[in-house]
Amino acid sequence: MANQVASTALSRTESINLGALSLVCVAVLVRTLEGDGEPLIASLALSGLAFAATYATIRWLGPTFIKAGLKGRDLSKVNNTHYLPECMGAVCAIVYLLIIIIFIPFPFYKDIVVATSGGGNRDVVMNVEFVEKGRLLHKFPHSKLASFLSAIISLQSITLLGIGDDLFDIRWRHKFFIPAFASIPLLIIYFVDFGVTSIVLPTFLQPYVGRELFDLGALYYVYMAAFCIFSPNSINILAGINGIEVTQSIVIALLLVFNDALYLFTPYPHPATDSHLFSLFFLLPFLGVSFALLYHNWYPARVFVGDTYCYFAGMVFVVVSILGHFSKTLILLLIPQIFNFVYSVPQLFGLVPCPRHRLPHFNARTGLLEPSVTKWEKEKQPHPIIAKVLHLLSQFKLLRLKQDEDGRIEETSNFTILNLWLVWRGPMREDRLAIEITVMQTLVGLFGLFVRHRLALLIFREDNLSYSSAV
Amino acid sequence: MANQVASTALSRTESINLGALSLVCVAVLVRTLEGDGEPLIASLALSGLAFAATYATIRWLGPTFIKAGLKGRDLSKVNNTHYLPECMGAVCAIVYLLIIIIFIPFPFYKDIVVATSGGGNRDVVMNVEFVEKGRLLHKFPHSKLASFLSAIISLQSITLLGIGDDLFDIRWRHKFFIPAFASIPLLIIYFVDFGVTSIVLPTFLQPYVGRELFDLGALYYVYMAAFCIFSPNSINILAGINGIEVTQSIVIALLLVFNDALYLFTPYPHPATDSHLFSLFFLLPFLGVSFALLYHNWYPARVFVGDTYCYFAGMVFVVVSILGHFSKTLILLLIPQIFNFVYSVPQLFGLVPCPRHRLPHFNARTGLLEPSVTKWEKEKQPHPIIAKVLHLLSQFKLLRLKQDEDGRIEETSNFTILNLWLVWRGPMREDRLAIEITVMQTLVGLFGLFVRHRLALLIFREDNLSYSSAV
Repeated sequence: MANQVASTALSRTESINLGALSLVCVAVLVRTLEGDGEPLIASLALSGLAFAATYATIRWLGPTFIKAGLKGRDLSKVNNTHYLPECMGAVCAIVYLLIIIIFIPFPFYKDIVVATSGGGNRDVVMNVEFVEKGRLLHKFPHSKLASFLSAIISLQSITLLGIGDDLFDIRWRHKFFIPAFASIPLLIIYFVDFGVTSIVLPTFLQPYVGRELFDLGALYYVYMAAFCIFSPNSINILAGINGIEVTQSIVIALLLVFNDALYLFTPYPHPATDSHLFSLFFLLPFLGVSFALLYHNWYPARVFVGDTYCYFAGMVFVVVSILGHFSKTLILLLIPQIFNFVYSVPQLFGLVPCPRHRLPHFNARTGLLEPSVTKWEKEKQPHPIIAKVLHLLSQFKLLRLKQDEDGRIEETSNFTILNLWLVWRGPMREDRLAIEITVMQTLVGLFGLFVRHRLALLIFREDNLSYSSAV
Repeated sequence: MANQVASTALSRTESINLGALSLVCVAVLVRTLEGDGEPLIASLALSGLAFAATYATIRWLGPTFIKAGLKGRDLSKVNNTHYLPECMGAVCAIVYLLIIIIFIPFPFYKDIVVATSGGGNRDVVMNVEFVEKGRLLHKFPHSKLASFLSAIISLQSITLLGIGDDLFDIRWRHKFFIPAFASIPLLIIYFVDFGVTSIVLPTFLQPYVGRELFDLGALYYVYMAAFCIFSPNSINILAGINGIEVTQSIVIALLLVFNDALYLFTPYPHPATDSHLFSLFFLLPFLGVSFALLYHNWYPARVFVGDTYCYFAGMVFVVVSILGHFSKTLILLLIPQIFNFVYSVPQLFGLVPCPRHRLPHFNARTGLLEPSVTKWEKEKQPHPIIAKVLHLLSQFKLLRLKQDEDGRIEETSNFTILNLWLVWRGPMREDRLAIEITVMQTLVGLFGLFVRHRLALLIFREDNLSYSSAV
């Protein structure tokens, strides 16, 4: 592995494969422009290009990142003396942003063609208004364009802030609010341009409130801001073993794509089709850059992803779900992250001491990961109430607890889902743990989507704005 | 100075002044919201806040930047052993972006109020379309919003790329194209949403072409891209002494503000008022962050600005002038930069050897700056044609040239406007040079504006789209 790190050139096979993939994608892209600019096909082609560009750039830039001080050591390996490039999520984010900016014209291709050719012969006398405004503007779906641009601004903001975090190693309590700043453009443009703050009430509540829609007003913005803060952070704290940040993000993205597809392949045109197309346009290139990153970050990792990737991934999900009006669906897909966050609360809020790193402990003798622990000194025992709760959690197998002969707590496992999984399933190798958590995330997510589409009709008269669930 | 660098706390006076300024600005901002949200006043207030935030943040973050490896030594000082924080332009850019994002609702305040209160009583039955789209969308000036958002995306892109440049120290030949990437969003949104590619022909050409407007088509995009590449780079290469990057940018911004003001204070509403208001909204906060940076970067500098600032400044000018349709005016204000670029060409393109740094030479004995030179080895004399040109330039006082007794060229001054100025005016202290160049930039710019507004009528029938020049 070590010499693989040193080499920054692509192997012959890699060059051929990436080159071929890029060529096919470019050819497909050109074809869509010859036809009617089918945006979904174009998005797929650009996602392929995004994969190839990210794959190659991560390899090439490794030593440059290390030289610039963006580096770290892998604590869960036997031979961990050499540095790996850190913050490679920034490469993903920047490739992604470039690709999504290039993609902007495609969803509007038809509108542009209509506007330029439908606007009449260019040789007739043009009045001043036409000259000043160019094409006939009232035909153009501006609100769609504004969503697009606001999504890009939010994603660029989180990238800038994420890079700042990776560079300056901001303290935990401060960085928690980084996504709040990045949510500002999204909220402001939502306010300026959409302003839908009503939610559909469950049927059983409707008789009491007297209507079907309830206007949350300013509270809706608080809800969105909280969501913007939660999603990126929740992905950022489910981290610490090779590949886990990327695989969980890929699973969530794939499930969102699956959910979007449900709306596209309906026998009749679904009213939410546009929202879900929008979502696909943002998720497909995300999958492209993420798979490329996963290749380099999978066990044994040759690069680290950095906070930038986690924030960025979380923000992609927030952006598509808020602008596509399916934020409740995203919540169902984030259940493992929500569990991990709630489970972490005792340490995050200082009820239980929180070490700098809570990643699972690497046992160099066995080569396996074990739950990492927080030690309790004899004279620094937890408050009796907390001790009681710790014992209770331990009884329900939600914690590993070690006592000395006098009943004093010696150590407790750290409060993360990764450690808890190791408590349940015993020590295992790093990649095994990543696979198991990813499978769990997939199953929970699929169950969430099942609940969303099958059981939602029990409490909502309509499946959001349509009368029957898709498929 | 050395202990001033170490202290990151604001002095008592600074705290009071910045606090008072911020309070006043917040008060003004709140007042505008109570009234009809007068956007120009709000922009001024936010620019004050931008100044205060940048001033304080640059002070606070100094050691953090140095620790992250963003540091450099000041070569033009006697005691140059300690490091100063580098890349502080990134702070400016990020504060600026945050402020401009917060500003988004203000220019649309009236439209939002109209849309929400003019949309009828909320208690009447709402049809599905209203619920789905929120407010009445067709009343909203979407094209204005799209300009705003595309400008922000371009500025965010250049910031991301600029930070990458400062971090990884990209080679000159590569970084020249960094602004090209940042121009993509601007061009694409221009294409999607405006598409005006016609230019007004000078009157003397009109009889031959047979019309007043000439459609450049795709060439217009090439022109815009070239402009996006040129402006940031031209500011980036007029650099090397304390404060010069910031003062030249401030002068250009002030002259653009002056030009905008000419359109606002006309006795009748000028058709280009909106474009120039747009320009002011982007320039005022830029002035806010730039003055704060100048305070820290002025001789003797306590921080360096980094490439990020130069790119960012150049892009602000491009964005306002392209979206405001006055790019020709900007060219008039960039004359010293254009001269510097053209003058640099022999070194940039390798006709004359180009050392890594071409900043003026600091004479530690006198404490003054002198022109820095390129040495010519005896056996590595220039090509006869180039030697001829060098002698010619020297005769016209456009170069300092030193020969040995055999007529061989020993050394020539480096091809930058700063060195040339020192050739003309003799050795001087660093701040004196910065002041003189800034005064020159101001005078040339004022002359450019005079030409623009007084003499343009000789070759254009109308002053752009209006019938008489402003003022």
